[in-house]
Amino acid sequence: MRKFVAHRAKSLITNAAVSLVKPHRQSSSSSDYHYTSRLARFLSSIPSDASMASENANPPLTAQSLNPKVLKCEYAVRGEIVSLAQKLQQDLLANPGSHPFKEIIYCNIGNPQSLGQQPITFFREVLALCDHPSILDRSETQGLFSADSIERAWQILDQIPGRATGAYSHSQGVKGLRDTIAAGIEARDGFPADPNDIFLTDGASPAVHMMMQLLIRSEQDGIFCPIPQYPLYSASIALHGGTLVPYYLDEATGWGLEISELKKQLEAARQKGINVRALVVINPGNPTGQVLAEENQRDIVEFCKKEGLVLLADEVYQQNIYAPEKQFHSFKKVSRSMGYGDKDIPLVSFQSVSKGYHGECGKRGGYMEVTGFSPEVREQIYKVASVNLCSNISGQILASLVMSPPKVGDESYESYSAEKDGILQSLARRAKTLEDALNNLEGVTCNKAEGAMYLFPRIVLPNKAIKEAESLKKTPDAYYAARLLNATGIVVVPGSGFGQVPGTWHFRCTILPQEEKIPAIVTQLTEFHKKFMDEFRD
Amino acid sequence: MRKFVAHRAKSLITNAAVSLVKPHRQSSSSSDYHYTSRLARFLSSIPSDASMASENANPPLTAQSLNPKVLKCEYAVRGEIVSLAQKLQQDLLANPGSHPFKEIIYCNIGNPQSLGQQPITFFREVLALCDHPSILDRSETQGLFSADSIERAWQILDQIPGRATGAYSHSQGVKGLRDTIAAGIEARDGFPADPNDIFLTDGASPAVHMMMQLLIRSEQDGIFCPIPQYPLYSASIALHGGTLVPYYLDEATGWGLEISELKKQLEAARQKGINVRALVVINPGNPTGQVLAEENQRDIVEFCKKEGLVLLADEVYQQNIYAPEKQFHSFKKVSRSMGYGDKDIPLVSFQSVSKGYHGECGKRGGYMEVTGFSPEVREQIYKVASVNLCSNISGQILASLVMSPPKVGDESYESYSAEKDGILQSLARRAKTLEDALNNLEGVTCNKAEGAMYLFPRIVLPNKAIKEAESLKKTPDAYYAARLLNATGIVVVPGSGFGQVPGTWHFRCTILPQEEKIPAIVTQLTEFHKKFMDEFRD
Repeated sequence: MRKFVAHRAKSLITNAAVSLVKPHRQSSSSSDYHYTSRLARFLSSIPSDASMASENANPPLTAQSLNPKVLKCEYAVRGEIVSLAQKLQQDLLANPGSHPFKEIIYCNIGNPQSLGQQPITFFREVLALCDHPSILDRSETQGLFSADSIERAWQILDQIPGRATGAYSHSQGVKGLRDTIAAGIEARDGFPADPNDIFLTDGASPAVHMMMQLLIRSEQDGIFCPIPQYPLYSASIALHGGTLVPYYLDEATGWGLEISELKKQLEAARQKGINVRALVVINPGNPTGQVLAEENQRDIVEFCKKEGLVLLADEVYQQNIYAPEKQFHSFKKVSRSMGYGDKDIPLVSFQSVSKGYHGECGKRGGYMEVTGFSPEVREQIYKVASVNLCSNISGQILASLVMSPPKVGDESYESYSAEKDGILQSLARRAKTLEDALNNLEGVTCNKAEGAMYLFPRIVLPNKAIKEAESLKKTPDAYYAARLLNATGIVVVPGSGFGQVPGTWHFRCTILPQEEKIPAIVTQLTEFHKKFMDEFRD
Repeated sequence: MRKFVAHRAKSLITNAAVSLVKPHRQSSSSSDYHYTSRLARFLSSIPSDASMASENANPPLTAQSLNPKVLKCEYAVRGEIVSLAQKLQQDLLANPGSHPFKEIIYCNIGNPQSLGQQPITFFREVLALCDHPSILDRSETQGLFSADSIERAWQILDQIPGRATGAYSHSQGVKGLRDTIAAGIEARDGFPADPNDIFLTDGASPAVHMMMQLLIRSEQDGIFCPIPQYPLYSASIALHGGTLVPYYLDEATGWGLEISELKKQLEAARQKGINVRALVVINPGNPTGQVLAEENQRDIVEFCKKEGLVLLADEVYQQNIYAPEKQFHSFKKVSRSMGYGDKDIPLVSFQSVSKGYHGECGKRGGYMEVTGFSPEVREQIYKVASVNLCSNISGQILASLVMSPPKVGDESYESYSAEKDGILQSLARRAKTLEDALNNLEGVTCNKAEGAMYLFPRIVLPNKAIKEAESLKKTPDAYYAARLLNATGIVVVPGSGFGQVPGTWHFRCTILPQEEKIPAIVTQLTEFHKKFMDEFRD
C-alpha cells in the first residue's frame, strides 16, 4: 500500500514538474530541469517499484570488474614511458628551462612524419583530388597538381562505384583498388595475385586483430611469436584470450630464426596441451631489424606446412631495406617458388601504408592478402570484415598508390624517385650512425638494422643499477629508459615490452629523428650512458 | 642413422640447388625456384627431423575449428540478401535484359553517397587542403577553394603537432580536434564537455566494439538492446561472447520505449543469472526511426542510475530529424539537466560522420564521449584505444568539422546551409512519400520516420506465403525481401535481421534513393506487393 502511494505521489509530482517546464522546451532547458531533477533525486529516496528493483542493482563499475583479457593486455610502445614523456613535454611548455633538454625526441614508435619526414607529393596530390573531385575539371588545378596525379585521380574515381569516395565500399575494399594492389603484388613477386584475396583495412593492426579473433577459441589455442616481438601481437593475443607461444630469435647470429628453436618450442607447447594454430613472422624484423634470408624463409614455410600452422607474415617493412646485400622476399613468393600453390599453405601477408619510405601512419591504410584458406573459412573472414563495414577510403586509395607508384615516363616519376630515394638513403645512414654510436658505448652491443625502422641494442647493466631498479620496483631496462628520458628527452622503449631472453636487457630506438638531429642525439646518448655507468659501475 | 643420412642429403642437395640459382637472384627467380621446389617436395617425402614432428601436425583449418563466437555472429545488413543483389547486378552487367529491372537499388544500408548524395563542399575543401597542405600558400588555391576553408585548414594544421597529418596522433585523437568537438557538444547541449572525454574512432562501429570488449567477460554478462535493434549490437555482443538481453519497443505507440518493459526484462534476465551491465539506446532509432521524448529519456537515465547500468547511447542520427515537433536531446544533456554530474552516471555517447546530412560513410570518422567512469576504468579504455594506435586523421578532421560547421558570416555559410537544408528537407519528403506508399499497401502498416534514415514497415503476410517460405527454409520476411529484389531490384533487409516480436514480419528500407527515383520505387513496390498478395492471399 505504501509503495502504491509513493508511486502515485511520484508520478503526480513528476508530471507537475514536467508541465512547469513545458513552455520552455525549446530553450536549453537546463536550469528548468534543475528543479525537476532535485525533485527527482528527492523522490528517488521514496521506495517505489523502480527503487525496489535497485536492491539487485549492479555495484559501481571498477577496473576489476572489466573483461580480464583487457586488464591482462599490455602495449609498451604507448605505455608508461610515453606517459612520462608527455608529462615532461607539458613541463617544458609551461616552464621552458625546467629540464636539461629543449625538446622530447620520440624514438619510441615508428611514426616518421611526427619527426618531420615530409609526405610523398604524388600520393598527397592524388588523395587531395579524390577528396574534392569537383576541382578536377578546373583550369587552376592544372597549375597546382601534376598531370599524372590528375590522371590517376580520374582512374581511381572511375574505379569507385558512382565516384563516391564518401560511400562505404565493399567490405574487402573497392574492387578496382584491389585490382591495382593485386597487380602490384604480382609485379613484386612474379606470381599471380587475386584481388579477391585482398582485404583492405585501417592499417595492419585491425587485420592482425581480425586473424587473432578468428583463430583463438580459448587459452588452449597458441600463437607462435618471435621474442623479441612487436607488442601488437602480445596485446592482441591477450585481448582475444589466447596463449603466446614464444620462439626466441638468436641475437648472436643477428637475430636469426632457427628452425630447431621452432621445433623445440612447438613440442614444449604441445606437451603443455597448447594447440599452436599459427606462426607469426615479422620480416623485416620489429624490433630487431633483421631481414630473413630466402633459404631461411623456405624452411619456415616447410615447417608451417608440415605442422599445419597458419603463417601470419608481418611484411609491413618490405620497402625498408638498408643492407645492400639484403633483399625482401614475400612469404607468398617464397612458398610459390617452392611449388606450393594457393591450396597448400594458409598464409596471410600484412601490409601497411604507415611504414615504407612514405610513413603515412595517420592515414590508417593497409591490407592483408589471404591465401590458402577454404571457401568456408574465407566466408567467416569476410563476415568479420563486414561487421565494421569497410576501411577508410583515403587509406584504401593510398594503399593502391603505394603498390602502384609513378612509373618511368610519368610526369611525377623523377620527383617521386628523388623523394623516395632521399628518405631511404637517409634512413640507411641514420641506422648506421646510431648503430655505430651504440656499439661504442660501454657494455652495449647492437646488431645491424638491415631493415625496418629500429635498433634493439643489448645493454649489460651493472649489478648496482639492477639493484637500484629493483628497489624502485622497475625492470632494469625500464629504469635505464626512464633515466635516459629524464636526462636527454630521448624516448626509447624498454626491451621488456617486446620480450627478451631472461636476464638480458635491451631497448628499442627508432632511426627516425631527422638526419640533422642525429649527431646531437648521439652526443646526448653517449654522455648520458657514460654518466650512468660511472654512477653504477660494479 | 637413416634419419641423419636423409637430413644430410637434404641439406646438401638444397644447398646445391640454392647455389644453382644464386647468380639469378636479382631476377624474379620464380622459374629458378621451381627446380628447387620440386627437389624440396621430393625431399619432404624422406623422413627427417621435421617430418617426424608432423605426426602431431594440426588438421587443416576448417570453419568449424574457428572461434565459435565468430561463427555465431550474424550481420544482416550485409548478409544473404546483399549477396543475391550483387549476383543480380553482375547478371545485369553481363546481360542487360536478364531481369525485369535496369538497376539494383540498394535500400539495405544507410550509405547516402552510394545512391548519389553529394558531399558537403566545405567539408571536402578542408579535407583536400589538409591532405596536401603545400598548396595552401599558392595563389591558384584562392581561386579553387573558399576563403574560410583555407582558414580552417590552417587552423586544423596548427592543432596537429608538426602539422603532420600523416603521423599517428594521440590514441584518443588530435587534442586540438577534440577541443573543437567538445566545444561543439557544449554548444549543442548547453553543458560543459571535456576534450579528455572524447575518443575519436574510425566510425562508430569500432567504438561500440571497444565498449563491448571492456564490459563483456563471459556469456553471463548481458547487454540490454532494443528489439528491433541495429545488428552491429547483436554482432558485437556475439563476437565478444556476451548475451544480448532484449527489450521490445512498442510498435503500437510508434516504437515507444517503456520503462515497465525494461524492468520486466531486467528481472527476467537476472533470474536467469545474467548480469546485465549496460543498456543500449538508439536515438533516433535504427531501424525504427522514432525520436525519443525528453521525458522518456529522463526515465531511462533514472532507470540506469538505479540499476547500475552503463548507458550506451547510439546518437549517430542526431542531425536526422524530420518531424517538426520532434527535437534531438543527447542523453548527456538530459542527465545533466536532471542534476546528475560527471560522477553519477556512466554514459557513452556514440557519434559518426557517416550519418547526419553529410553521410560521409567512406571517411570512417566518429567519436565516443565517455563520462562517469572512474580513472582506473578510463585508463583501460585508453589502453584498448592505444593498441590500434589512433583513428584515421581525415576522419578525425571531418568529425571536428561536423561538430563545428561554417557559421553565419563565414564565406561558405550560405552554400553550406543550402546544401545541408536541401538534403535534410529532401530526406523528410522522401520519408513521408515512402511511408504513405507503404501504408497504402494491403496488410502493411508503417510508423513515421521521425528521424534516422529508415522505415520499418510491418507486413501481415498471408498464411500461404508463410508456408511457401517455410517450404524453402526461409523466414517469411526473407522470402518476401528476396521476391521483392528479384522482381524490382530493390534491396531491403528482412526484419528478422533486426529482431521483431515473434510471429510479426517486417523489413527495413532506407529513405536514401535520390528524390527523382522515389516515384518509380513506389510504383514498383506497389505493383510487386499487389501481385505478391494476389498470388498468396488466403
